[in-house]
Formats: sequence, C-alpha cells, structure tokens
Amino acid sequence: MHDALQRDLRALAGDAAVLDPGTPAYLADATESRAIRGRADAIVLPADAAQVAAVVGFCHRRGLSVVPRGGGTGYAGGAVPIDGGVVVGLERMDTVHALEPERWRAHAGAGVVTATLQRRARESGVFYPPDPGAAEASQLGGNLATNAAGPHSFKYGVTRAWVTGVEAVLAPGELVRFGGPVRKDVGGYDLTGLLVGSEGTLGVITAVWLRLVPAPEAQLPVLAAFPDVAAGCAAIAAVLAHGVQPATLEYLDGATLRAAADAGLPPGVPAEAGLLVIAEADGSAAEADRVRAELRELFAETGASGLHAPTGRGETRELWRWRGAVSRAVSARRGGKFSEDIVVPVEHLAAAITRTQEIGERHGLPACSWGHAGDGNLHSSFLVDPGDERDRERAAAAAGELFALAVALGGAISGEHGVGITKRGALAGQWEAPALARHEAIKAALDPDGLFNPGKKLAR
Amino acid sequence: MHDALQRDLRALAGDAAVLDPGTPAYLADATESRAIRGRADAIVLPADAAQVAAVVGFCHRRGLSVVPRGGGTGYAGGAVPIDGGVVVGLERMDTVHALEPERWRAHAGAGVVTATLQRRARESGVFYPPDPGAAEASQLGGNLATNAAGPHSFKYGVTRAWVTGVEAVLAPGELVRFGGPVRKDVGGYDLTGLLVGSEGTLGVITAVWLRLVPAPEAQLPVLAAFPDVAAGCAAIAAVLAHGVQPATLEYLDGATLRAAADAGLPPGVPAEAGLLVIAEADGSAAEADRVRAELRELFAETGASGLHAPTGRGETRELWRWRGAVSRAVSARRGGKFSEDIVVPVEHLAAAITRTQEIGERHGLPACSWGHAGDGNLHSSFLVDPGDERDRERAAAAAGELFALAVALGGAISGEHGVGITKRGALAGQWEAPALARHEAIKAALDPDGLFNPGKKLAR
Repeated sequence: MHDALQRDLRALAGDAAVLDPGTPAYLADATESRAIRGRADAIVLPADAAQVAAVVGFCHRRGLSVVPRGGGTGYAGGAVPIDGGVVVGLERMDTVHALEPERWRAHAGAGVVTATLQRRARESGVFYPPDPGAAEASQLGGNLATNAAGPHSFKYGVTRAWVTGVEAVLAPGELVRFGGPVRKDVGGYDLTGLLVGSEGTLGVITAVWLRLVPAPEAQLPVLAAFPDVAAGCAAIAAVLAHGVQPATLEYLDGATLRAAADAGLPPGVPAEAGLLVIAEADGSAAEADRVRAELRELFAETGASGLHAPTGRGETRELWRWRGAVSRAVSARRGGKFSEDIVVPVEHLAAAITRTQEIGERHGLPACSWGHAGDGNLHSSFLVDPGDERDRERAAAAAGELFALAVALGGAISGEHGVGITKRGALAGQWEAPALARHEAIKAALDPDGLFNPGKKLAR
Repeated sequence: MHDALQRDLRALAGDAAVLDPGTPAYLADATESRAIRGRADAIVLPADAAQVAAVVGFCHRRGLSVVPRGGGTGYAGGAVPIDGGVVVGLERMDTVHALEPERWRAHAGAGVVTATLQRRARESGVFYPPDPGAAEASQLGGNLATNAAGPHSFKYGVTRAWVTGVEAVLAPGELVRFGGPVRKDVGGYDLTGLLVGSEGTLGVITAVWLRLVPAPEAQLPVLAAFPDVAAGCAAIAAVLAHGVQPATLEYLDGATLRAAADAGLPPGVPAEAGLLVIAEADGSAAEADRVRAELRELFAETGASGLHAPTGRGETRELWRWRGAVSRAVSARRGGKFSEDIVVPVEHLAAAITRTQEIGERHGLPACSWGHAGDGNLHSSFLVDPGDERDRERAAAAAGELFALAVALGGAISGEHGVGITKRGALAGQWEAPALARHEAIKAALDPDGLFNPGKKLAR
C-alpha cells in the first residue's frame, strides 16, 4: 500500500517532492524531548498551492488525513503526525512574492522562514514585528497557524494583527483566498482570523498577505535586575501605571537565570538576581532615548539591584541573542523540559511565577519561568530527563496544575504555543460548555470529515 | 398576537423594557435617507445579559427572529428589522464594569456609548483609539458587530485590534464568553474575532473586554490642500514611502469640500482645492513635533497649495469637529446620500476617487468622496433627493459599479460599514464560490435556525 501511495503522490507533486515516510525530521517537533514522535504514511513537499490542493483532494478521496507542517518548531506537537496520514510540508513554498516597502506590505509563500521576511523587510526600511523564539527556523505559515507572538508583541500585537489576507487549501481540497493586500475588509465573516491560530486543523495555509510598518530608527534595551519576584513585578506594574510604552517588557526569574547559566549573564546582572526585566525602548532616535531614560529612572526608583542599558547595535544584538538562547540552555540542564505558555492578568504575574516554582517543587522537578511580562504570558518550565518516564509523568501532572492556575487567576492556558496534542482537552478547564460546543461547531463546519490534523486542538 | 407577545416580553425583561413596536427610532438607522425602514413585532431593551439570553431563548421557541441594535448609526441597514422580529436594543446595558488605566484595559457593557468610553479613558490617561464617525451615538456592541474603524485606525488598527474578549448570547439563547482581560489567548478558535464584524447575524454581543494604550501626550493635525487629486494622492504616497507614521491620513476630495461648504472650510484651505489631506502627528510632545515637521516638509515638497497645522487644543478639536460634520453637510446638500465604503490598495486611491466622480456623472448624480486615505478606504457618496425613487435607483446602480471597481482594483466592497442589507450579495463579486460557501457554513454552524438578523450580511 505504501509503495502505491508514494507513487500516486509523486504523480501529483513530482518525484523530488515525496520523501521517505520514515524521515525522522518530519515526525517530531520541538516537543521531541517529551517523547512525542509520530509516524507518517507519506511525506510530501508540494511546490505550489495547486499541488497542495491536489494532494489534499487526493487524501480526502483516499480517507487519509493531512498533517500540515511548517518549520516544526512548535511546542505543542501540532505538526507531529500522531497516527499516520500524509505530512504536507510547506518549505518549498518559500518565495516572497512581493515586498513593497513603500506601501508597507508583503505577500509571501507559507514556507518563507520568519527571519528571512524580517531581514528582507529591515533591509528595505520596514518592520515585521512578530518575533517568535525560533524565527530562524519557523515559517510564516506556521506562525499564522499558531498565531505566534514573541517579545515585540507587547507593543505591536500578535501575528494576527499583521495578517491582512490568507490563501489556504480547505476541505475537501479547495484553494480559497480570504482578504489580500488591503488593510480593512469587513464584507465577509473573519475567516482570515479563524485560520490564524487554527493549528492546521481547518486547512493548509499556502500564502499570506502581511502589513508592515516603518522600521524604528532605534531599539534600545534596558535590563534591570531585581532582588526578588515581588520587586521585579512591582517594577513591571510601575511601567504600565506610568503609561510608559516599551516595545518589549520581558522577564526571566532567578531560577531561569541560574538554569541558563551556561549561556552566561549579560553585564550588570547580579548572579543572585531574583528577577530580570528586559524592556526595549524603540522609535525615532529621540523617542527611543526618551523612553529609555524613563525606563531607567523607573527601574532605579523601584529598587533595581543592577541596570544595563547598552546603546551599541552589537551589544543590543548580543543581548537578544542571549535572550534567544535561554530556552535551549534551560533544556540542556537536564536534557529536556516541559515548557507551557500560560497567560494571566498582569497583576497576577508575581503569583504565577511563584506558583510555578511551588508546583515544580511539589512534583519533585526543578522549575523556572520567563516570558512576556507585559502580556502576562509566562513560559513556565519543568526540567526533565527526557529518558525518564516518571519525570515525564510528573511534568505532565505539573502542567495540568499550571493550566488550572492560569484559569483560576482569570487567564488562559496558552498565549502563543497553542493546544496541539500536548494541551488536548485543556480548554475544557477554561471555557464553559456552550463555548466549547462552538469551538467544535467551527471544526465540524469547515472540516466535516476530520481531514486536517486529527487529534489536534481538541477542546475536550 | 402582538398584545400577548408584549406581555410575555414584559414578564421576561420588565414593564419598562418593552416599547411600542411602532417606535420609529428603532425601525431605521443612518440609511433612512435611502428609505430603508422596517417593522418590528416587538422592541425590547433588556437590562442585563441574563435578560438578553431569556429574550433570545423565548424568540427561538416562538420562531421569532432577533434583530440586535446598538446606537443605530450604521450605514448598511444592519440594525433595521426588515421583516418583523424582535428588536433587542442594548442601550440600557451601558455600565463601564471596569476601567483599569494602570493595566491598560476596560470591561464594559455592549450599550456603553463609544464616546463615553473614549472620554473616560482619556480622563484616566489611557486611550481607546477606534473613532467611528458617530462616536457620540454609536455603542461598543455595535462597534464590535461592524468592526468599526475611523481616522485613527490608520496607525492604531480597527476595533478588532482592541478587543480581547466578548460576552454574547448565541443561538438558541446561551450566554457565552470568549476571551477576557488577557492580551493573548490561543487555546480555542478565534470566536472573538468571528463575532467581531458579524453584524448581529451570529449572536447578540452583551459585553466587551478592551485593551487600551497610554494616551498620547500630543495630537497635532496637519492639513494640506492640493490643486488636484493626482497631486494629493502623490503626497499621500510620499508619506508612506518616506516611512512617516501619522496617526491619521485622511482625505477629502474637492467635490466634498464644495458639497460640504455649509460646514465652512478650515483656515488655509483654498476653496478651489482638488484634494485636502488631514494627517495627525501624535505621541510624546517631542515625537508629535518631529512627525508634524516631517509632514509639513513632505507636503510642501509635494506641492501643497495650502497648509494649516494648528497646535492649540481648541483649534485641533475644532478641526476634527469640522471633519466630523462633513458627512452630514454632504447629506444636507440634496437631502440624502448613498455613501459606500470601498477599500482599494493605496496605490489605486487616485483612480478610485476619480472613478467615483465618473460613476456619479454617468448616473446623473453629484458624487464626492472622502475617507481614510492611508487605509485606501473611501467614503464614495452619491447625493440624492431621498424622496425621489429614480434618484435612489440610480444611486443603487452607481453603488453596484463602485463595488465592481473596488474588486477590479484588488480591494474590498466594505472597509467599515459592513454588508447589512444594502450590500446584500455584493461579497459574491469579491470572493470566489468556495470562499462564499465558508461564509455561509459559519452562519449555518453558529445560527442553524437563522434566528439572528435575517437577511443581513448575506454573501449572495
């Protein structure tokens, strides 16, 4: 059966598009350290949207499911073929169809790597703000599918805020377009927004239209270390209460700083800090200077034990590189981690940080958290030995408590990773039954035969 | 039958909540000059969400449709009960449940008047940017239902960008909540986004959670008059190409200036101007000054024949009041107008302005346009004598050509008014059949019995 399947897919998408269905890189994602690994009946890398439509239609007729795949950098197992089906990788659809800096917009294939678009925009004087952690590997289609975010979403919003249109293949294999280059459009229901964040369960995104903004002239980070969580969170609250708008308002707790010790510490950060805040002032040079000065003053007033505010481009880049390396450095500590992305109202940030620690202790796992403080979005992580099944069970139990905590504090189970397979059913703790029924009604309406990404983003 | 119906509704929502079903103000909206006027079986003004749920459930059991109504300021007839049913007005649900300036957010009843929230935010040092034209009468629930926008959406985005959660009564009468005070949430499909812009066809919005931003310290308008459409649109293109980000980038064509002559002209605007641009610089005082200077320089370089850049608060308020009065002044010219809100890619703005004139001439109707230039969003208007049926027929034909023009230029049939009843079927000119089918699938999934706002937002 497999040989015939490969042959049929080669006829649809070309010989080079069909990989060995056992190719390991396509059977896992960034959850691999949780031992999440699937199996595929086939792996195909279409060259264009018409081929995607042909493959999806073929799968529908044959009763095979379709598992769309971007960069495979997800933290929820959304791109993993849990129980067979055809993995449809978008990586060959990596053409930037149009980059129009003078009109503040772009049109790109779903397989364009996030960092490629970011860089090309920058080189043209415009800015694409969403900056998920794995931007060098993640793809725009996957960014849309998860509604990815990142540090700069505090000022600039999540991926959804930058999407003006989407092209996708929907069940049973139809190529559809919603929106396009225009910045306003209220004629139809917001199907663009519905596909954003749908985690490949409603269709395969094949191209995106994005809006852009003029690139800020300056981006000036301000690091402030605080002796403990309470002091650091009070400083974060002060930034908001004083009406200061940084582009980022990040935090790392003390346990993260120590777990990530292999990545070193930026200058001026005491090794025993209880919380590190990273705010970035941006805008015109004068505006960034002004915001930077306000941040420095606020952090000094709120009891920072260390301050570091580099102005050179090299130092700034270095700092964000260090911030980007934290997740891997934390993983390296014990070989793996369960990292969840709960959201809480910002006034409960300190409680959520402290309770993450307590939950870890109760389950006998080292815990730490960092994330997007201004958005109340934590990356609460439990460090595990990925080979140890008991560790994984403990971490799963700890994650369950974390979701309950987020909901109890008035928040959400996921701010940017999505549900995938790892948070399957967790939405039932957050939404009431009538809301869950509408979530399921949407899936049934757009994918009545369950063609796309089975087992993912399930509410119960 | 009507007496029994009134009695049943009074039992559900109280005596004072049930109005005479012939009350004129509830049977029309801002399309009244198009002779759009409906009839209602009942008009009820519930005091809270539980009453809304009770009324909707009652209507479902009795086979009566529900027509939700906010401020009734819509331009598409969305709030008009075309063929009976129960009008559910939200105006009594006008409580701001929470305004938290220190956390940049608010929670409010659907019946809160837009300008009330804007003012209360301002008084607390925060800013709610969406500013639809009728903000003194429109309500937040209606703003969500139409995904309203306005001048400041150029920099700050449409209503959707400010909504973090929504409470609504869905069919067959269930109170549901999606989202809440947190700024990121990707656990479920984007049902919040789906309700935004749904024009009351998927449910009745009863409360909203909004995010806010620190209020800009300064808002400095710059008016520039240009001799003709081409020169004015070249200046608008230059603002974008130079990477200057004003908060607004508005235009009014010469015909609008002359049609609105009763509202006068701001200082420095020559009576024979072909296009007027209104850009507003905002931010900190220094930042607004910087952007203002850049705008002045750009407009001077691109051949402005008149420049007016007031700095006093009084003058600025006066200017926006004048801008707000334009729509009414244009209507007053012949008694009424058909005003459509097409969107085109910004490089086609000049063509759309010119073609609006040509379409009017072809149909023997005075035409003019103004709107949100930076978003490519025109308010293309055909002036009519509302008592003249032939005028109305001509204007409807002209509007049809306008929609075709927007689509031919790669744009959209509606940027902010929505489809309502006046653009019924127009989406079929913009979307392909498979996309239209998904629009209809959403309606069928969430309102299978067609309970809400029948005949509105129909795609074909």
